[in-house]
Amino acid sequence: MTDATEIPGFHAIVPAGGAGTRLWPLSRRDHPKFLLDLTGTGRTLLQSTWDRLVPLAGPRGVVVVTGTAHERAVRDQLPGLGEDALLAEPSGRESMAAIGLAAALLRERHGDVVVGSFAADHVVRDRAAFETAVREAEEAARAGYVATLGIAPDHPSTAFGYIRSGEPLGLPGAPSVRHVLGFTEKPDAATAAAYLATGAYRWNAGMFVVRAEVLLGHLERLQPTLHEGLVALARAWDTPERAEVLERTWPRLTRIAIDHAVAEPVAAEGGVAVVPADLGWDDVGDWRSLAGLLPPGADGARVLGDAADALVRAADGALVVPAAGRLVAVLGLPDVVVVDTPDAVLVTTRERAQELKAVVDAVPDRLR
Amino acid sequence: MTDATEIPGFHAIVPAGGAGTRLWPLSRRDHPKFLLDLTGTGRTLLQSTWDRLVPLAGPRGVVVVTGTAHERAVRDQLPGLGEDALLAEPSGRESMAAIGLAAALLRERHGDVVVGSFAADHVVRDRAAFETAVREAEEAARAGYVATLGIAPDHPSTAFGYIRSGEPLGLPGAPSVRHVLGFTEKPDAATAAAYLATGAYRWNAGMFVVRAEVLLGHLERLQPTLHEGLVALARAWDTPERAEVLERTWPRLTRIAIDHAVAEPVAAEGGVAVVPADLGWDDVGDWRSLAGLLPPGADGARVLGDAADALVRAADGALVVPAAGRLVAVLGLPDVVVVDTPDAVLVTTRERAQELKAVVDAVPDRLR
Repeated sequence: MTDATEIPGFHAIVPAGGAGTRLWPLSRRDHPKFLLDLTGTGRTLLQSTWDRLVPLAGPRGVVVVTGTAHERAVRDQLPGLGEDALLAEPSGRESMAAIGLAAALLRERHGDVVVGSFAADHVVRDRAAFETAVREAEEAARAGYVATLGIAPDHPSTAFGYIRSGEPLGLPGAPSVRHVLGFTEKPDAATAAAYLATGAYRWNAGMFVVRAEVLLGHLERLQPTLHEGLVALARAWDTPERAEVLERTWPRLTRIAIDHAVAEPVAAEGGVAVVPADLGWDDVGDWRSLAGLLPPGADGARVLGDAADALVRAADGALVVPAAGRLVAVLGLPDVVVVDTPDAVLVTTRERAQELKAVVDAVPDRLR
Repeated sequence: MTDATEIPGFHAIVPAGGAGTRLWPLSRRDHPKFLLDLTGTGRTLLQSTWDRLVPLAGPRGVVVVTGTAHERAVRDQLPGLGEDALLAEPSGRESMAAIGLAAALLRERHGDVVVGSFAADHVVRDRAAFETAVREAEEAARAGYVATLGIAPDHPSTAFGYIRSGEPLGLPGAPSVRHVLGFTEKPDAATAAAYLATGAYRWNAGMFVVRAEVLLGHLERLQPTLHEGLVALARAWDTPERAEVLERTWPRLTRIAIDHAVAEPVAAEGGVAVVPADLGWDDVGDWRSLAGLLPPGADGARVLGDAADALVRAADGALVVPAAGRLVAVLGLPDVVVVDTPDAVLVTTRERAQELKAVVDAVPDRLR
């Protein structure tokens, strides 16, 4: 059930980055995954992220952090995004800098609000479950925890990190929330299967909900230099000094992921909580993952794009992406992946999709 | 060894037709196989056919029979073709009409010459062996036989008809020529293997060498109506009446292949001879056949086109045809076939290539 009201004082941070390697040739360095409609809904991943956050944070409560190269595209796709709600990074400095800057700026502007960080390039099919989970996470955040959403695994994936959950927190407004005992790196297949057997592990989707003051407090303690730079930047952001401070500070910010900077060490101290969530979530990490998100057609193939541009025979489980207005004909080859764009076509299999980076590394620079 | 002199009074007939279905999407209805460079030599199949016939027949001794739709393209590709040496058919009436018209016309123009018929869309890699074989066939033709070139089979192909050879003819100038006991339809695999085991069977490449008078004599006896139409047409061809006679006669010509009209019944009468020939011949009947003609690159893939446009990983035996100036990237999928053209891309396997017609039948008309 969806509660239609906004969460008072809740702000959503949307890091919008990524190299676009694993969904090449549809995604490119300067046209990454979050700018694409990968579900055939008519909305890009960024727009869908916006659509599911606005009911919780309100249109004025969403902040997007992206590279300067994508500023124009983000504005075009999100006409409702506030003038001062797009934070443009001069260069990528990993997720802790992006989220930390936004959290510090929101604290400058609004005081000790609860912030939630949600990547711009994930798919969430069950929006009601998402809203329920975020509301519970917000309760845990108010209680001082770094709260994260833990996705119910439906297979022993080796593509995601896992969250190991412990005892329930016992919060009245968030009955399902549990302590986090630790985070894991992406496991091998046997380890992943063992995780699933225990019932205690959930996928780490990188969604964090936390009071700005709590997050920045952890950061001050664990990454003091990074904290100092971000706080200085946040103070200058809404002043004429922004450009100057940005130029001086940004290139020296520590490059570190929020998982390593905060989530893992704080979990070890007992400060992280997990909200079990079954969201129909996927990070659309590669073509295999995308194939799983699309419904099969009468010919057994999945098509992202105009089905009239795909002619498939004897290729059950094929994924065809006709993105160049040309006909893509497939004969034989179950589970083949064909991605057709105006300047490059990729032919591979679902099984091989994870190895795509090796191909993209060999592609001429102009096509990356 | 190549004998560099022309064969006196020898004329070559080149039927240039075909629907282009089995090499779709590179070949199309109005851009059939013979107009394509399928071997990466820089010469189209038609041009290569010309190149190997001119040393035998001279540039003035080659006649091309093609559809009116391809007249311009043939002229463009063969600037040396004589003004009166292109016979344009208003519509396709099968090979007997095409070859019979040319033979009748050559008899009108030159008397009882020896004519040889060679399809415009086959590959012959050993030109010296071809010349030797044609010279032997010409000897047999002078002796009154319908002579055909019988290709030494290197595998039990089910894609070709077979020629069953008998005793040597005993002609002094053509020692290897034998009687033909019969022709077969394309056999199944077991039958083809049995054929090979006997050593008496050779592939029927549809190449016939025969005196015009002999061919037309057989035709008069076996297909009198067709003969009558062709002779009337040949008489009118070089006169102001050509258009009128063509319009009246052409649509009523019997549709029949030269194999059925002449070669098979005459073989049963003992009138056909075969020249055993090992020519590096292929009819490039489908993508699998083409793949076998191209040398593999360092990555194990065959590329027809600019190798820089093909990026292949872990796909030994792949055939990539980048014919749209775009990058074709293949990851995994040994033996895959990828043919990239400006308005359609085909992805299939060597194994499935023979089933391509079913796909082309479903392709929108504008792309056929």
